[in-house]
Amino acid sequence: MREEQLIQKIRRAFGKTGFAERGGLLGIGDDAAVWRPKSGCDAILTCDWFLEGTHFRRDLHPPDAIGWKCLARALSDVAAMGSTPVCFLLSLAVPAELTGRWLDQLLLGLRRASKRFACPLAGGDTTRQERLLINVTVIGQTKSGRPIVRSGARPGDVLFASGRLGEAELGLRLIRRVRKPISPKNRFLKKHLYPEPRIPLGSWLAANRLASATMDLSDGLSTDLRRLCAASKVGARVHAAKIPGPRLADLPKGHIFKPLELALHGGDDYELLFAVPARKTTLIPSSYGGLAITSIGEITKKRTVELVGEDGRVQTIRSEGWDPFRKSR
Amino acid sequence: MREEQLIQKIRRAFGKTGFAERGGLLGIGDDAAVWRPKSGCDAILTCDWFLEGTHFRRDLHPPDAIGWKCLARALSDVAAMGSTPVCFLLSLAVPAELTGRWLDQLLLGLRRASKRFACPLAGGDTTRQERLLINVTVIGQTKSGRPIVRSGARPGDVLFASGRLGEAELGLRLIRRVRKPISPKNRFLKKHLYPEPRIPLGSWLAANRLASATMDLSDGLSTDLRRLCAASKVGARVHAAKIPGPRLADLPKGHIFKPLELALHGGDDYELLFAVPARKTTLIPSSYGGLAITSIGEITKKRTVELVGEDGRVQTIRSEGWDPFRKSR
Repeated sequence: MREEQLIQKIRRAFGKTGFAERGGLLGIGDDAAVWRPKSGCDAILTCDWFLEGTHFRRDLHPPDAIGWKCLARALSDVAAMGSTPVCFLLSLAVPAELTGRWLDQLLLGLRRASKRFACPLAGGDTTRQERLLINVTVIGQTKSGRPIVRSGARPGDVLFASGRLGEAELGLRLIRRVRKPISPKNRFLKKHLYPEPRIPLGSWLAANRLASATMDLSDGLSTDLRRLCAASKVGARVHAAKIPGPRLADLPKGHIFKPLELALHGGDDYELLFAVPARKTTLIPSSYGGLAITSIGEITKKRTVELVGEDGRVQTIRSEGWDPFRKSR
Repeated sequence: MREEQLIQKIRRAFGKTGFAERGGLLGIGDDAAVWRPKSGCDAILTCDWFLEGTHFRRDLHPPDAIGWKCLARALSDVAAMGSTPVCFLLSLAVPAELTGRWLDQLLLGLRRASKRFACPLAGGDTTRQERLLINVTVIGQTKSGRPIVRSGARPGDVLFASGRLGEAELGLRLIRRVRKPISPKNRFLKKHLYPEPRIPLGSWLAANRLASATMDLSDGLSTDLRRLCAASKVGARVHAAKIPGPRLADLPKGHIFKPLELALHGGDDYELLFAVPARKTTLIPSSYGGLAITSIGEITKKRTVELVGEDGRVQTIRSEGWDPFRKSR
């Protein structure tokens, strides 16, 4: 297969992308894509690695999940800014032996995510490598002045998280450790393989100017909360009893998983973490579009990140979430 | 080194990036970059792989050249659209043992290119891998309706190329084959290591609506001309005697390089290939800003890509340029 044929395959897999309806003037097949931004809007620019061996394993992860997830996680950054997707660019480096059915499956998953989140393919770059490498660039847009940054949290703000934290990590551990095949309907597995960027929630928070700071939880609460605090030059205190961890009732008895640990340090949830000024907290519902929203703590002036245990003891949270430059756990 | 430290290192290496002056509202350090497009402008979106083993070799290429070239080649697509750079996103996957001085050198070269071509760093993604992997996304902008695409060439248009073709390929062959160190001032080596995207020429062609089709020569004339013709649904005829190949006078006697072959199939030149309607050709100077512009042939209705030899014989040009999916030459 030559490079042109691969590009043709990608083009066919996506068919009519819908880029034109989002301001796209020129899509796949030229030197670059051309997009006419809506006037009065700011553009959101983000890119994300998704690499074999680092972010996924070919022996554990089905190709359609790899396709879905590479876009979903890049879109999570767009959600965290309170913006809506415009389009994405796909950089794909693929081993020659995977350019057949396996790649078809990957493109199928990618296309499903592209439709689901209304983020059309606009272009990209392809090459050959021994390992599958993916980089996804996403362009989003939001009304001028409305993006929600990480750095706006102030002491006294209340911290919220969407969904349940640690579920994706639990899904990963299940496929790693459990020998027998797990139903793809298992909610932990689904969360690990097919995460949902919280675009509607992010847009709603931005449109109503409810959050002082937002970020997505990609590397685990313990790591990402530190980042939000560092960017905002504040600290935080979260309460173990409030953190919504995975519901483990469905797991076989005798399992070794600890919900709080999973919720604190598990990565890949792609939930939103956001701070809300105290006077606005009454405007935050307990769920948005079926997605739970939970108050988990508050922003503090003291620049430490602390956990109040169920026994009332306070301890500093260490970052034990995902960091590719640290030895694997 | 942890991921945060690596991001700090990149941030320090770039210092004040200049993104704000180009409409940047938020740069490195948040979930995404935020950019306010100029009203009345279209945005140009492109991304490019630059991978160890495929696009460069760590034993042949100095780190500052890797840094320079990864941005320069992505900018070449922006030049081909006739647009000017806004900013770039850097996705960097780096082996742990390279995060010291070697990476400093790479960032230095990247920063030099960023300044030289007025394309500030706006964000990106970092992770660890055993091999150095780079993906660069570039955002450009151009007056609405002015991007020059590949697909506009019409029979009778005259084909032009900037610069001399095959020089970068010759530079690559020199460092591969010649044992003794080559002066970094050697023009072939310079062209291979530190290519210059033709941004001023591309902008000028677009601003004056001179070209019916433009693309950059990244994979060799024989491959890229086919692409331009396929996109425009036309053919082309180029003349061996007109194609500006490398000037080989400086090379030691008895060398085995054939200028025409280098010019036809050598990649990495990042010159512009463009078609101009016959009635506008008098407006094309023989050089622009010191860069030679040469008429090399014409667009034909018959959908073949032909070479007229110096002896007058006509043959079809086979694509023998760079294609990562074909076995290496």
